[in-house]
This record gives sequence, structure tokens and C-alpha cells, in this order.
Amino acid sequence: MNNVLENRAWRYATKKFDAGKKVSDEDLETILEATRLSASSYGLQPYHVFVITNQELKEKLRPYSWNQSQITDASHILVFANTTDFGEELIEGYVQNLSETRNVPLENLKDYADFMKSNLLDLPVDIKNNWTARQVYIALGNVMQAASELKIDTCPMEGFQADEYNKILGLTEKNLNTTVVLPIGYRSDEDETQHYPKVRKSKEELFTHI
Amino acid sequence: MNNVLENRAWRYATKKFDAGKKVSDEDLETILEATRLSASSYGLQPYHVFVITNQELKEKLRPYSWNQSQITDASHILVFANTTDFGEELIEGYVQNLSETRNVPLENLKDYADFMKSNLLDLPVDIKNNWTARQVYIALGNVMQAASELKIDTCPMEGFQADEYNKILGLTEKNLNTTVVLPIGYRSDEDETQHYPKVRKSKEELFTHI
Repeated sequence: MNNVLENRAWRYATKKFDAGKKVSDEDLETILEATRLSASSYGLQPYHVFVITNQELKEKLRPYSWNQSQITDASHILVFANTTDFGEELIEGYVQNLSETRNVPLENLKDYADFMKSNLLDLPVDIKNNWTARQVYIALGNVMQAASELKIDTCPMEGFQADEYNKILGLTEKNLNTTVVLPIGYRSDEDETQHYPKVRKSKEELFTHI
Repeated sequence: MNNVLENRAWRYATKKFDAGKKVSDEDLETILEATRLSASSYGLQPYHVFVITNQELKEKLRPYSWNQSQITDASHILVFANTTDFGEELIEGYVQNLSETRNVPLENLKDYADFMKSNLLDLPVDIKNNWTARQVYIALGNVMQAASELKIDTCPMEGFQADEYNKILGLTEKNLNTTVVLPIGYRSDEDETQHYPKVRKSKEELFTHI
């Protein structure tokens, strides 16, 4: 098996983390930088990521996470929150950044900004919300993989009460909604599930070649 | 820069593919296997992937893809289609697979199957549709990265007419909807955009540490 597949076979949704093992600052930095480099539609990155190490806060979030132990045992919890609604500011911010990063005068980017605005700004709020959430999931797929390349474990979780997370983290007033939660850290030796074979659709079931 | 970040910095949304360079069967196999190993909620993988090499079909899809040249120039086009609606069959199929893969009697999995059913089956169709689409985006983030590890280029595309893709590929009658399109292949030397610096939010803007 080559390297690409080895990392992917190694990864699993960690049920029990070793509460005593912490992700190093250097590895965390790499994981966050990988997140930051994630692709997104138009490059807009319509989300924010909370990196939680505060144990008290983890304890507070756990009851709203089906009481799963990963929330308190994992080294860090990444809480991804997508932008629920947005206006011009998202696009203006991006274009400003593009102008500075690539040294292009802002006025040369006006047509491109207008193109994005006409595609995005009039969408109904629930479409915007679902579209920004999808961009989060690209980052999620990417960052889980980045962690596994460093032999760091993750457990992507949709089983939490978004409204309570939003309240605790103060997201609603920032136009953000908790999309998905990703504990990261190291698997416990006691987690038997690490030895279970992966359950996946067969190639025949998943792919059609044309 | 370490390896994890190097691959991610190398990747960009390829605007022009080298139409003469094809992805080898071996690399394609790795990319598809990485896709197959992607995480998904409950492991249900509620999607199907069309792997298109047929040039005639690519030509047919291009006008419905904002006429972007990637569709006809890339070596392969992966069309990801999410399950729009689902009933018991999705969960039964998974549990059957779980039973066979891990050698667990089906009757021992009944409670788990019922748990999934009670969480999922009564969701409104548009919630189901958006939830399955998000699972596709995990696979998308993962497979783009797998390709980049092999120094194979990709260009994730949301700019296409899903209804026309659905018609051409016969998806609607299969309860599928085109979610996202991913041309894969090799960048053309002529694609100037490969040299542009990446535009990304700053760490300060993207992350909050608590």
C-alpha cells in the first residue's frame, strides 16, 4: 500500500482519546495552516474556526455533544462555524485581500467582484447557509487528512446541539452557526474500535466508469 | 515547510489542463481508493461518483459547465452526486455491509440500525439532500488532497447546471443530484494562475483560540 492510502487507512473516527497526550504547538500550527490553505468556492472561506483547549469550556460543551468523552479527552477541539448570512462585506473583504496579495489595483477587480456579488448576494438565506456549510466540509476533509499525515487522530462529530454551541460561543450575533466539531489528539490504547476493519461501499457500488 | 503543507501549497484550482497528459491507471486507482476511504456521517457514504474519460461525454457536459475548458482538457472528470432522498435501504445496506465486514450477526446490529433510522428517516427531504451533499464535500476535500500528494492537479467546480448534468447522466431517476464536479489531470505550462500567490484569510481572521 502506498503512502497516500496508508494514512487514509490508518485514520478512523476515534471513540476514546488518550486524555494525557497533547498535540504539540508545532503540529497544531501545521494543522491550522492546512485548514487555512483549504479550497473554498471563489476562495471566500465563509467560515470561522474556534480552537478550544480550555478544559472548563470543553466540560461545558460536552453535555450538548451527546455527552461524548472525546469532547473532554481530546487535546484540542476544533469547532467549525459557517457564515449563515452574508452581504457585500464577504466579497469586498476577499477582493481587498486579493488586491493586496497579488498586487492588483482594486479597480481592476471590480468586474470580478460584481460577478461574485450577482451570483451570491441574492440567494435565499437557507441556500447561502447550506452553501457556506459545504465549504466547511471541504476544510473538514482536508484537515482530518492533514492530522492523519502527522499521525494525529480526529473524530468528526455532527452529534451536538448547534443552538447550545452557538449560545456558549456567542456565534449567532456574529452570523455564524456551528457546522461540525472535530476533536483532535491521540487515540487511547483502550479504544478497541481502532482495530475494527473499515466498513465501506465496494468500488463497484461507489463508482461508475464512463 | 514540511511535507503536509508543501502539498497543500502546491495545489491550486487549475484553470488550464495539459490535454495531452493522462493520469495513469495506477494513480487513478489510488485516487478512487482514497475517495472510497473518505469519512462520512455514520459511514453511510450517501453518494455516487461518476468517473468520466469518454471524450464525447466531456464535450457534451462542457456547455453546461460555463463552457470551461477543464471539462474537455482534463484527463478524468469526477462527477460527485449526492443521494437526494433515502429510506431504510441506505441504512439496511450499510448494516448488512457492517455485519459482513466485521463478522457481527445482523440481529446484534438492530438497535444501532434503529438508532440511525430514528435520527435520519423522518428528516424533511431538503434537509436530507443538504446533509448528503455535505458528506460529498468531505470526500471532495480528501480526494483533492490525495491527488495533490501524487502531484496530480484538480479543479473543484460548482459552476455547472446540475439539472443538465442530471439529465445527461440519468441521475434523477436514481435519486441522485450532481453536487460538485472535479476535473483531474496535469496543469498546463501555459496556465499563468499556477504562479499566483494564494489568497487566504489571515490566521487572525480565521481562528479564535479559547
